[in-house]
Amino acid sequence: MRAALEAARAAGSASEVPVGAVVVRRGEIVATGANAPRGTCDPTAHAEIVAIRRAAQVLGRDRLEDCDLWVTLEPCAMCAGAIAHARIARLYWGAADHKGGAVEHGPRFFGQPTCHHRPELYGGIGESEAGALLREFFAERRR
Amino acid sequence: MRAALEAARAAGSASEVPVGAVVVRRGEIVATGANAPRGTCDPTAHAEIVAIRRAAQVLGRDRLEDCDLWVTLEPCAMCAGAIAHARIARLYWGAADHKGGAVEHGPRFFGQPTCHHRPELYGGIGESEAGALLREFFAERRR
Repeated sequence: MRAALEAARAAGSASEVPVGAVVVRRGEIVATGANAPRGTCDPTAHAEIVAIRRAAQVLGRDRLEDCDLWVTLEPCAMCAGAIAHARIARLYWGAADHKGGAVEHGPRFFGQPTCHHRPELYGGIGESEAGALLREFFAERRR
Repeated sequence: MRAALEAARAAGSASEVPVGAVVVRRGEIVATGANAPRGTCDPTAHAEIVAIRRAAQVLGRDRLEDCDLWVTLEPCAMCAGAIAHARIARLYWGAADHKGGAVEHGPRFFGQPTCHHRPELYGGIGESEAGALLREFFAERRR
């Protein structure tokens, strides 16, 4: 989660909402993603999607069933769907996202009968630091 | 939808599940996407995501509020989320996806309070041809 928080800080420095993600396999980082939809002109470039796409490229396959994903914010529906398609084994996330989250909020995607893979779920990991990063970012932009 | 069906056929010829998508702006095609998760080692490479990412690159922005998306199959949660993030104005789809769809099935994402943009929705456009493509593809693979 430390590496994911670093990626989140990098996103914030680039004026993107500070969310970071890391794909881990056998205890080693395969790929990192920083949230970057604005800077890359890509509405799908959430941290999770960036990290999953990179990890799949690195490993040369579209299924990452031996990989875990660490992300600083509860995934949205797009990212939860991508996590299921990628067959991620374990999902660890930091802050809860009451407005846009899709794991414990809204569609609660992994509990839907149309979800074909449910990773092990571990929320609230490093949530205070992840949440503080987001609050600071939005507080500064409101000034 | 004709162009989306062509992209779907191209996906099928490449041994991918035959789904195609097109982003249209002011009556002109901005970008086309063919489903390609296997061939590109990218679990996020559904037709909609490919088309949206390309259109955003072409237009040089991450919001496509003046664009419509045509896709041969009801979008899944990942793609429905991406459509909302991209602020697509109108969504036209072909065949219903009872197993993995997220518009009229499962999470019914665009009706969730955590969905921040709901496009106009038009289902069942060219569904017989889109559905036939999918049925033929899976029938052949079952042999």
